[in-house]
Amino acid sequence: MSPRALVLLATGAEEMETVITVDVLRRGGVEVVVAGLDGETAVTCSRDVKIVPDTSIAAAATQGPYECIVLPGGGPGAAALGASAEVGKLLQEQDAAGRMIAAICAAPTALLDHKIGMGKNLTSYPAPAFKEKLTGPYNYLEDNVVVDGNLVTSRGPGTSFDFGLKLVEILVGEDKMKEIASAMLL
Amino acid sequence: MSPRALVLLATGAEEMETVITVDVLRRGGVEVVVAGLDGETAVTCSRDVKIVPDTSIAAAATQGPYECIVLPGGGPGAAALGASAEVGKLLQEQDAAGRMIAAICAAPTALLDHKIGMGKNLTSYPAPAFKEKLTGPYNYLEDNVVVDGNLVTSRGPGTSFDFGLKLVEILVGEDKMKEIASAMLL
Ligand SMILES: [Cu+]
Repeated sequence: MSPRALVLLATGAEEMETVITVDVLRRGGVEVVVAGLDGETAVTCSRDVKIVPDTSIAAAATQGPYECIVLPGGGPGAAALGASAEVGKLLQEQDAAGRMIAAICAAPTALLDHKIGMGKNLTSYPAPAFKEKLTGPYNYLEDNVVVDGNLVTSRGPGTSFDFGLKLVEILVGEDKMKEIASAMLL
Repeated sequence: MSPRALVLLATGAEEMETVITVDVLRRGGVEVVVAGLDGETAVTCSRDVKIVPDTSIAAAATQGPYECIVLPGGGPGAAALGASAEVGKLLQEQDAAGRMIAAICAAPTALLDHKIGMGKNLTSYPAPAFKEKLTGPYNYLEDNVVVDGNLVTSRGPGTSFDFGLKLVEILVGEDKMKEIASAMLL
């Protein structure tokens, strides 16, 4: 069976980080569910691209478990994910079961909001506010993609392909990752 | 006034090429209209991401001129753009006025379908079928982004950031292009 990933989509999410991750995972053979924080209606992203989620987070939560839960960046999107009790419950169950949690750009701050993976190696978008918030609670690194146990984090739009490919490598395998990277001209 | 770009969105478009280009142009200060070939309803892209266009191509055509018309790739999306008389008319008017036309991945084949920019330097996704079709009618090159007069072409998902940034450089300027590339961690 294909591994499954749940991508949490909130208003203000960074659309490139969202779409690159979803597309790369699907190219890699991962079954991806894009779940809207506010239900099934179209979500307006950070640069006004409007994406229709596959389902709501409430409905997606009843259809787990997912091998990986992905949090795209974008400041307001990440703040909404960090403020949601529903997201907190999903992430805490995922972490307790040792299953993968992945966050990029601003979204690692939502991990801190929900007390996920405390003390682990992690990265984020290099804005001073994020770096200061995350340094201490985590061991903050400057690599494009950081893997520590079940936690995978990355930095921003320009590292989104690396982020998606690392998830494919872990969930599916290195051969598949290399095959799709080549087909995408990376 | 901001330069304006029209992005033509058809079912089966490559969602990364679409969203990266739109997002990068908007970060660069270009006013972007995403127009659906089949109206205003959500468009299902090549890896099942569903994007809601800002308007229909029919409505967008009445609100020109646009400094640039962009054709995202994705095989079925590009074929639909190549088969549309409405798209042909828009592109021929754009080309006759010497305004920019940009196409990536499979979409340069739609330029050939509408006899746009014949004989110019051009590139595309390096699939043998595309390369054979375009070699002869055009001077086929292997660069990530090819600019020849008002025609800008590029190769695939992995060259989408370069493609979007080149459009920003031409439409807005090199300083803005460098500023947003840095902010995106490129
Ligand atoms: Cu971001």
